[in-house]
Amino acid sequence: MSTKKFLLQEKDIPTAWYNIAADMKNKPLPILNPKTKEPLHAEDLYPLFAEELARQEMNQTDAWIEIPEEVRDMYKIWRPTPLVRAYGLEKALDTPAHIYFKNESVSPVGSHKLNSAIAQAYFCKKQGVTNITTETGAGQWGAALSFAAKAFGLELAVYMVKVSYHQKPYRRSIMQSYGAEVIASPSMSTRAGRDIITKHPNYQGSLGTAISEAVELAMQTPNCKYTLGSVLNHVMLHQTVIGLEAEKQMEMAGEYPDIVIGCFGGGSNFSGISFPFLRHKLNEGKDIRIIAAEPASCPKLTRGQFQYDFGDEAGYTPLIPMYTLGHNFAPANIHAGGLRYHGAGSIVSQLKKDNLMEAVDIKQLDTFNAALLFAKTEGIIPAPESSHAIAAAINEALVCKEEGTQKTILFNLSGHGLIDMAAYDQYLSGDLSNHELSDDEIGKNLNELEHLI
Amino acid sequence: MSTKKFLLQEKDIPTAWYNIAADMKNKPLPILNPKTKEPLHAEDLYPLFAEELARQEMNQTDAWIEIPEEVRDMYKIWRPTPLVRAYGLEKALDTPAHIYFKNESVSPVGSHKLNSAIAQAYFCKKQGVTNITTETGAGQWGAALSFAAKAFGLELAVYMVKVSYHQKPYRRSIMQSYGAEVIASPSMSTRAGRDIITKHPNYQGSLGTAISEAVELAMQTPNCKYTLGSVLNHVMLHQTVIGLEAEKQMEMAGEYPDIVIGCFGGGSNFSGISFPFLRHKLNEGKDIRIIAAEPASCPKLTRGQFQYDFGDEAGYTPLIPMYTLGHNFAPANIHAGGLRYHGAGSIVSQLKKDNLMEAVDIKQLDTFNAALLFAKTEGIIPAPESSHAIAAAINEALVCKEEGTQKTILFNLSGHGLIDMAAYDQYLSGDLSNHELSDDEIGKNLNELEHLI
Repeated sequence: MSTKKFLLQEKDIPTAWYNIAADMKNKPLPILNPKTKEPLHAEDLYPLFAEELARQEMNQTDAWIEIPEEVRDMYKIWRPTPLVRAYGLEKALDTPAHIYFKNESVSPVGSHKLNSAIAQAYFCKKQGVTNITTETGAGQWGAALSFAAKAFGLELAVYMVKVSYHQKPYRRSIMQSYGAEVIASPSMSTRAGRDIITKHPNYQGSLGTAISEAVELAMQTPNCKYTLGSVLNHVMLHQTVIGLEAEKQMEMAGEYPDIVIGCFGGGSNFSGISFPFLRHKLNEGKDIRIIAAEPASCPKLTRGQFQYDFGDEAGYTPLIPMYTLGHNFAPANIHAGGLRYHGAGSIVSQLKKDNLMEAVDIKQLDTFNAALLFAKTEGIIPAPESSHAIAAAINEALVCKEEGTQKTILFNLSGHGLIDMAAYDQYLSGDLSNHELSDDEIGKNLNELEHLI
Repeated sequence: MSTKKFLLQEKDIPTAWYNIAADMKNKPLPILNPKTKEPLHAEDLYPLFAEELARQEMNQTDAWIEIPEEVRDMYKIWRPTPLVRAYGLEKALDTPAHIYFKNESVSPVGSHKLNSAIAQAYFCKKQGVTNITTETGAGQWGAALSFAAKAFGLELAVYMVKVSYHQKPYRRSIMQSYGAEVIASPSMSTRAGRDIITKHPNYQGSLGTAISEAVELAMQTPNCKYTLGSVLNHVMLHQTVIGLEAEKQMEMAGEYPDIVIGCFGGGSNFSGISFPFLRHKLNEGKDIRIIAAEPASCPKLTRGQFQYDFGDEAGYTPLIPMYTLGHNFAPANIHAGGLRYHGAGSIVSQLKKDNLMEAVDIKQLDTFNAALLFAKTEGIIPAPESSHAIAAAINEALVCKEEGTQKTILFNLSGHGLIDMAAYDQYLSGDLSNHELSDDEIGKNLNELEHLI
């Protein structure tokens, strides 16, 4: 076994984020006020988000948005991240394909989420905001934002889905170690939480409820903004540092990817690795395949509909044009908690609609099988989320083997799995299974969307 | 807050390990056969260890030992590791000191242990060995060796102290994910284990018992060797890649450390960071302070005696010249499990005796206090073991502040604490305490040593 890393220096950290919306021929459809059905403008989002973030969200004209020096300084804690040629995996698969991965797991919190957490905390601080709120499911985003908030001197309240709060105490402790307040949701601290607890005293929470609580607290607290770790355009924007670095590193390797792969939940790491490569497809017609790898149990891109839908379960957000399974869709309780989201962001949805990218769905057992092969050959135990990208890359490498073609495959290792070992334990004990999803189950939630617009 | 990393390229990974024994004026005393009290030779260790490792163990003449290309190839998975200027920590302390840390936590298993695990697995494989055994307490060494064994195609059995096996399921799962067999010790698989289980059916195990089981299995299995993750000279040797890289990186930073600090258990990471710097003190009389930071509850270097003692609790190993608390010393159950060892290796013990290095002891609560300050300012949640080095570095930086002197302090961040969050949880809940250790408690175990030689 052998390996090869391609390492950049700090000066190679990108100085601007790439805003793909500016290069898209078919722009994403506008997000709408659910009552008036009128398009929203940046100003409409100011009450909820920092103003600069709201403007980034709506920007469809500037392809490059400068990264503030303070944000780049923080990126230097762990960026640039390595690009690795996965010789060990290639050898184990006996494939002629060249497999590369971008290793975002080296961040202090173990995932790519910090790329946007730092940017969001910075823009809030710059505007004079003192408090921020967010929600977190499995805890990757919450952990990243906890460190970012501390670094910029912001107070942070994280609503963590109650079942995770109790089942994933390590991620909760990480947030608390960075100094964040972590509240199990539903909680008595908000009206949304109190209402649900009163009706269902034993309710274990959902991301939808946690969003409602975080939004409510932000709206009712002076000098407080709400933040989100995926789905929104400004989050995708911040994550493009991943792909921009990878592009330089592929150049160092003397190769260019034929296929770029990211796992897909709300789209943050997928967009981060793929948009910078996709821009050459948009602008110069470059022949490159972009693949989103989603869980078979939450297949919005492969089996969902392109339709206006709410971003949250409760229906408090604006209407977003998305590939969706319906905002009431309840995905099975798979271990890749970060991919259990019903819809795709508006940019990715438009790109998929225009056939500028593809999507594949991967079954849970196949992701763990791929993860263990990766751990044994490349040394890193991947996050269950990232294992979807690994499985998709392995599938493509095996096609190369069958066809005898030498393709270059790049995937994003969005995070490590060291805090997800309970999931590996279950897999190794044979206690894990796949979740078959019938067309009826999907159709049921989609039918309910028709009245929305 | 700001940060600055000093990054090397793969070509900068050292090509030779530094063997400090060759440069020591007073060589470490020989290890002895406990029956004959005669010095042992490399050949005497061949039944237990790979021959090349046994020769490295006894080598007091060659200052540089070439790192095989296959080992350097594996090092490339995560080496060279970053050197970081801890601006955030400096600012929080308001100290004129410059603080640097070498970040060994970026290895796939989260600690420096992989530096020696890979070397040991390689030399076993090269000799045609097919199976290896080891013991592990908290699991850092076991995790590292599990990956190394898989990488070189060796079968590995790890005896894991029973209480850790049940209390730290994540580390057990990591070893199993890499394909190792993990056995809770005491077990029925060895005579040593069976004897203890028969006498004490509920015994939760100790490192001493686990060593006995691993040694016994190695001796009784064809083509099988035993491996160890600390204390021995060849382990220190392999770890010197840490300090050799750090030396080049300090040069990039345009500084040279006045003080080098490592936490101290058996000596593996401490020796790794410090020996390459110490060589300039030995050879050129360079003015540099080397500090081992040990737990106040296991203070062999600060309160132990220099004396021949066994390396294990049961007394199966050769007699080793060491600073020791007595091989029957039972350290309190602190969270820095990797530092709960009764003695120091023979080289470190001689260096300490000759006043070429210092030692300080740190109380458990002070280590967690230091760890949280570090996490909030530098982003990385440190392992409880590494937090001893952080606390010692902070103490030195505060002395600089008091005296108004600008010193350059380098410490080794031997690992991250993402799998130790239960310990942080306890600290944050106020459930942790210090362990006061009376002179009587220490004296009791030391008195029993006098008959040994």
